[in-house]
Amino acid sequence: MTEHSLWRFSRALHRAINDRHFADVETLLDEDVAWAIYGPVDMFPFLGARQGKIAVVEVIRQLADNFQVRRFERESIMLGVDSAASMLRYSLTALDSDKPISLRVAQFAQFKADKLLSLRVLVDTFDLVEQALGRAIHLPKMTRVG
Amino acid sequence: MTEHSLWRFSRALHRAINDRHFADVETLLDEDVAWAIYGPVDMFPFLGARQGKIAVVEVIRQLADNFQVRRFERESIMLGVDSAASMLRYSLTALDSDKPISLRVAQFAQFKADKLLSLRVLVDTFDLVEQALGRAIHLPKMTRVG
Repeated sequence: MTEHSLWRFSRALHRAINDRHFADVETLLDEDVAWAIYGPVDMFPFLGARQGKIAVVEVIRQLADNFQVRRFERESIMLGVDSAASMLRYSLTALDSDKPISLRVAQFAQFKADKLLSLRVLVDTFDLVEQALGRAIHLPKMTRVG
Repeated sequence: MTEHSLWRFSRALHRAINDRHFADVETLLDEDVAWAIYGPVDMFPFLGARQGKIAVVEVIRQLADNFQVRRFERESIMLGVDSAASMLRYSLTALDSDKPISLRVAQFAQFKADKLLSLRVLVDTFDLVEQALGRAIHLPKMTRVG
């Protein structure tokens, strides 16, 4: 029984972000990989959609320029033959400010022949923005009930 | 072969939110159900964590007070025997303003004996906040690279 593609990809991605070792993750990307981390691209240009191996390696470099992964914890995980979904809590350091950022993330991945074919990541973006700004954004209460 | 618990729960939840018919969803909740929709609870008091059937029915009533579900589309789905993970795009109407809100959501659910034991929902919260405010929040560009 071989290891699930998710574990290999996850290790390679974290090694790329933390150690700037991009070779392993590059070999695990399908040529036509579809990639999306949904969020405010005006504030964080490394968010958004990318298509193809070259563009995805470039965005992983940008992630490595901006963050270190201190640790992560999987809260939920589902594994299929060629797919995986998980909810995680990441503890990051933002390299521009040296500030800690703690973030909940959901990711849905599809693999083909052990290579990443598609990754979609949803982030608790308001929490991310407030932590990156280092202050709360004042919000009105929006509800019809108490 | 019986229907997956997710489909039954999903139908009952949407019927509760849109038609204020809460009886079906109530019968599909475990007594000790754990529920969380992560997001800014100051702005949206119906977000956050709830524990137990009574608290969860109450929060579903609050969702029904605030939103109608116009339509939704599943972008990714994984089904296990007693679990499900999916990424969806919801088209909602905010009832206080009659404004349309389009939102990406990831949900992880666990069932026991066909009842919902746990639901964790991650939302693209910054997108939600901007749509609810009806205006963009100005953000500085936060990146170490161009």
